[in-house]
Amino acid sequence: MTDTNHDKAIVVLSGGQDSTTCLHWALKTFGKGNVSAVSFDYGQRHRIELDCARQITEMAGVKHTILPIDTFSALGGTALTDDIDVPEHVDEGELPSTFVPGRNLVFLTYAAALAYQQCIGNLVTGVAQTDYSGYPDCRQHSIDAIENAIRLGMEFDVTIHTPLMYLTKAETVELAQDCGAMKALAFSHTCYNGKQPPCGACPACEIRARGFADAEVEDPLVARLKT
Amino acid sequence: MTDTNHDKAIVVLSGGQDSTTCLHWALKTFGKGNVSAVSFDYGQRHRIELDCARQITEMAGVKHTILPIDTFSALGGTALTDDIDVPEHVDEGELPSTFVPGRNLVFLTYAAALAYQQCIGNLVTGVAQTDYSGYPDCRQHSIDAIENAIRLGMEFDVTIHTPLMYLTKAETVELAQDCGAMKALAFSHTCYNGKQPPCGACPACEIRARGFADAEVEDPLVARLKT
Repeated sequence: MTDTNHDKAIVVLSGGQDSTTCLHWALKTFGKGNVSAVSFDYGQRHRIELDCARQITEMAGVKHTILPIDTFSALGGTALTDDIDVPEHVDEGELPSTFVPGRNLVFLTYAAALAYQQCIGNLVTGVAQTDYSGYPDCRQHSIDAIENAIRLGMEFDVTIHTPLMYLTKAETVELAQDCGAMKALAFSHTCYNGKQPPCGACPACEIRARGFADAEVEDPLVARLKT
Repeated sequence: MTDTNHDKAIVVLSGGQDSTTCLHWALKTFGKGNVSAVSFDYGQRHRIELDCARQITEMAGVKHTILPIDTFSALGGTALTDDIDVPEHVDEGELPSTFVPGRNLVFLTYAAALAYQQCIGNLVTGVAQTDYSGYPDCRQHSIDAIENAIRLGMEFDVTIHTPLMYLTKAETVELAQDCGAMKALAFSHTCYNGKQPPCGACPACEIRARGFADAEVEDPLVARLKT
């Protein structure tokens, strides 16, 4: 591996509030010509996320790669063959039986493979430890461990940035203001129910609303949908 | 995560000589009822490997899961869009431009996700440091790093076993004899050219032949094809 460019970065972009904020953090930190984004099409229930990610990268003028992942649904499908109850309905906040542990390990490994191919030395992910909802791979020591595994396993001097790791949702809103992400956030997706306009009632909508309320800022998505 | 069973193991099985030997090492180590296998269908050029893996697990009477991975070919495809030369012919021993770095990180993460779902506390992989051919993720310190990332990222007390890590090819043949893998090896696949019977001339065939020659043992695949 030669000539890794440590001035460039790839952002793992889901199309949600956090990763959209990270995209604009990266644009501010690395400069517009140095940032690209990767999203994953893994059969997520809310494919509206991918449309949001597309629109947000278009608005920002950054290159956007969408990589397919069919393995999660195949792994989820093993629930069907192993006498595990597959619930018809997953309660809000609960992990579905098709939950794939270590999803961020996979996302970051693939993002690193893409970065390796393009000699790009930085990855950015919007995971946050403060509101981690039972996902251990969102914590900083997990991210440090996967960074180490990637560095050794790919012989690749990559750095994984987690600008939101220790921020509250209100602080994330303030960061979004600081790095010019507000316009993009008007097109980001959060609602667990996949609704556009968002349902406003699910835990994801509630957390988002509370963050903006605590920061005393109007959610640009709410503002956009009013007009 | 509760009640992880540390008496059970999942073997990452390609259908080649090394992973087939590992399957039988696992059967000897953990006992027949405690071993299952996972293979990956990732668009490998030699799909005969998957047929071999199927036959070898059937012969051993172990459960076999084949998981699809479409992401590697999508990542490989990025070479087509990024002005990287795509060679028509890949020289023997060279990495193709569609090489995905960190492939074993992905395999082991998915194998661990499967093990997590089934509460199985051991993984077995046939990677070996002694003849690692430019693949840094075959080395023990890479395996240790991914084990650590999986443990933290999944909160899962899993152990990754690498019984061949420091063995020469001749010692691997001796291990295969010790653990009763010889019959299965008659159906394993090695040839880079995907030929059955093997071409005998490519580097993979040469390395395999040299290992059996050094161990002064007849390759059961060669013996089978003679009859």
